[in-house]
Amino acid sequence: MKIGIIGYGKMGQLFYKLFENHGFDVLINDPKTKSASFQRVIKDSDYIMISANNEGNKKILTKLAKISKNGDLSNKLIFDISTFKKEIIKYYNKFSSNVLLSSIHPLFGSGMKDPKKHHIAIIPISKSDGSKLVENLFSNIGFNTFYVDYETHDKIISLTIGLSYIAGISLNKILTSYNKDIVNKLSGTTFKYLRNHYLSILNDSPEFVDYIFSQKEVKNVLKNYRKILSDLSDKNKRNKILNEIYSNSDEKEIEYAYKKMYSCIESY
Amino acid sequence: MKIGIIGYGKMGQLFYKLFENHGFDVLINDPKTKSASFQRVIKDSDYIMISANNEGNKKILTKLAKISKNGDLSNKLIFDISTFKKEIIKYYNKFSSNVLLSSIHPLFGSGMKDPKKHHIAIIPISKSDGSKLVENLFSNIGFNTFYVDYETHDKIISLTIGLSYIAGISLNKILTSYNKDIVNKLSGTTFKYLRNHYLSILNDSPEFVDYIFSQKEVKNVLKNYRKILSDLSDKNKRNKILNEIYSNSDEKEIEYAYKKMYSCIESY
Repeated sequence: MKIGIIGYGKMGQLFYKLFENHGFDVLINDPKTKSASFQRVIKDSDYIMISANNEGNKKILTKLAKISKNGDLSNKLIFDISTFKKEIIKYYNKFSSNVLLSSIHPLFGSGMKDPKKHHIAIIPISKSDGSKLVENLFSNIGFNTFYVDYETHDKIISLTIGLSYIAGISLNKILTSYNKDIVNKLSGTTFKYLRNHYLSILNDSPEFVDYIFSQKEVKNVLKNYRKILSDLSDKNKRNKILNEIYSNSDEKEIEYAYKKMYSCIESY
Repeated sequence: MKIGIIGYGKMGQLFYKLFENHGFDVLINDPKTKSASFQRVIKDSDYIMISANNEGNKKILTKLAKISKNGDLSNKLIFDISTFKKEIIKYYNKFSSNVLLSSIHPLFGSGMKDPKKHHIAIIPISKSDGSKLVENLFSNIGFNTFYVDYETHDKIISLTIGLSYIAGISLNKILTSYNKDIVNKLSGTTFKYLRNHYLSILNDSPEFVDYIFSQKEVKNVLKNYRKILSDLSDKNKRNKILNEIYSNSDEKEIEYAYKKMYSCIESY
């Protein structure tokens, strides 16, 4: 079986290796790399994965939907790996019904090493759902997979990705005003652990970060975040917040996280 | 040589074990534990470490300063492990000059396992400095030690501890409105790593967290943080911030942090 990858960025490269290591023939199409032509990829591949950036994915899906009208994509599986699904899913409506469709979200980045430690969310496409094929493909490689509707997906992804960038970018910014060496010296374990977070997120491009911040639901998360910081500045409200957090906290979970943090920091 | 520990909380217990494992006789005084009397600890110990909470440390130093006037603490070493130094250092001025004095900040919590991976900051006390003894004591145990004046110490600690709690508490609060299971499922590697941070900080008591937020310099850090989040809500200002961060970033440092994050997450 042949898999075509359209869009050979960090994630495209990661999946290329994974598919190859699992014995698939893999074709690549990307304007930036010596690669197969778009025509050849869609003709020869049984499965086509779309992994360009957000605007690129929309263009590719538009192009493929047109082609599907001629019957040239019959029984092929097409799926994308876009971060947010609401907009992307509209593009699948334009496909001919003899194409199998799905949309996935790999919950990891290009640093992924062990599939067994990671999840892939599968968002079914009502039009002509090919999610079962996607599920088989990725669970055979070793990933944990689960199904989720696009609305829940986008709401929670806006939260988890949004918070990762809101916290990370603001920490990076505030630290530009301080001397790095003395900050590093006077960092406890907790801040050392956190530094690793705010440095890691810079592995993504500023364009991607801005794209995240531009999402409507991420804007709402940022608004809530600002309200909470305002409340934390007020002693009474702060104590209410601390009460709420501590009374809902799970001692075992905290102990586990704390141990994990130390083992992470001491292993380097 | 005997070491007395006054205040047997999490940190007191950690140092008790460390000192014992390194062959010292250790005496403990704490109202909450079956322990030696205050009188016995100060009479029999050569070194006295003060590790109660902030208000407790002030009371103990006041008591010891009085006793020092009778010459009963001659040539003994006294040091505390308070988080902030500006206020505490005033209490050392009241001691008789035949007592050796110092103040330290262990840059780790009770989860510490390997001293070689951690730092202790030493803040000299001009009155009658015993920092050399403290330095020998802790570097023999295996810690990395360095000297810093109390003003620099407090400024940078307000930043590193302040940011750890500002980020951690706000993340905990925002997540109280969401279903934990779906958030866990739809978390990428970066957010999983961050979750470990915001859960870990709950290992500290709410009283300690409130004490941190109540510090004047932490209040300023929170103010700056709020200004940055407000700027991040504005597309133009956000792009300026992203430009500044990315143009000052160190590619190797980012790559290292990113790898470290994955190895932390995949090791569990």
